[in-house]
Amino acid sequence: MDRETRATADDHRALRLWLRLLTCSQLIERHVRSRLRGRFGTTLPRFDLLSQLERHPAGLKMNELSRLLMVTGGNVTGIVDQLVKEGLVERVDDAADRRAWRVKLTRAGGKAFAEMARAHEEWVAELLAGVPRRDSDALMQLLARLKQATLEKS
Amino acid sequence: MDRETRATADDHRALRLWLRLLTCSQLIERHVRSRLRGRFGTTLPRFDLLSQLERHPAGLKMNELSRLLMVTGGNVTGIVDQLVKEGLVERVDDAADRRAWRVKLTRAGGKAFAEMARAHEEWVAELLAGVPRRDSDALMQLLARLKQATLEKS
Repeated sequence: MDRETRATADDHRALRLWLRLLTCSQLIERHVRSRLRGRFGTTLPRFDLLSQLERHPAGLKMNELSRLLMVTGGNVTGIVDQLVKEGLVERVDDAADRRAWRVKLTRAGGKAFAEMARAHEEWVAELLAGVPRRDSDALMQLLARLKQATLEKS
Repeated sequence: MDRETRATADDHRALRLWLRLLTCSQLIERHVRSRLRGRFGTTLPRFDLLSQLERHPAGLKMNELSRLLMVTGGNVTGIVDQLVKEGLVERVDDAADRRAWRVKLTRAGGKAFAEMARAHEEWVAELLAGVPRRDSDALMQLLARLKQATLEKS
C-alpha cells in the first residue's frame, strides 16, 4: 500500500471503531433512558444532573454544572428550576462569591437519587449480563488506553 | 463471596464498564461537535440528519428520521425546516402515500455532506491515531460481542 492508501485505510478503521463504540454506547443509553422514563418518570439529563450533584456535596455553580453536563445537555437552567420546584435541589449562596450561588442536592434529592442510582446499576448489570468476565476485563483495559490516547490528542 | 456480594460486585463491574464506554464515546463526540462547529458552523444533530439521508437516497419520512435520530435528538422538524431553507434538503411527495412526504438530500446537500463526512473521518483518525492497530482490532471484536449480548437483552 502507498502512503495515501494506507492513510485512508487507517482513517476508515478509526471511523469504524468510533461508530461501533457509539452504537454500543447508544444501545445502553437508549435502554437506560427508557427505564428512567418508565420507572421514575424522569429523563437522562435530570438523572445526570442529580448524579453530578451527588458527586459534589458542596454544590456546583451553574457554569460548572453546564460544563459537566455538556453532552447530555438539555436546558440546565430549566432542569434546575424544575428540580428546585420538586424539592430535590436547592440554590445556596456561594461563600466565596457574593454574586453567585451554588446548586446542591436536598436531603430528599439525595434519597431520590440513591434509589434511581441503584436501579440504574441493576438495569446496566442486566443488560450486560451476557458479557463474559474476561471480555469486560479486556474492554476496561483497552478503553482505558483508548481514553488516554484520545486525551493526549484532544 | 455469597450470592448477594457477588451480584453487587458484578453490578459494579457492569456499571464501571458502561461508564468507561460512555466516557470514551463522549470524549470523541465532544471533539467532533467542537470541530463541526468550528469548521462548518454546524451541529452534530444536523450532521447526523444529513448522514441518515445520505444512507437513504430514496428519502425518509419524518417518523423514520426521528426514530433513526433518537439519541442525538434535537428538534427534527426544526432542523429539517432550516436545512430546506439552506437548500441542503428537500421535501418530496411520497409515491406510496399521498398524504405523506419524504425528506431527501438535494444535490447541494449531498456535496456539502460529502465534504463534512471526509473531514469527520479525518478528525476521528487524528484523535484515535495513538490507538495501536492490535488494540483497535481487539476492541472491534469485543464491542461486536458486547453489542450482540446487549441486543439479546434489550
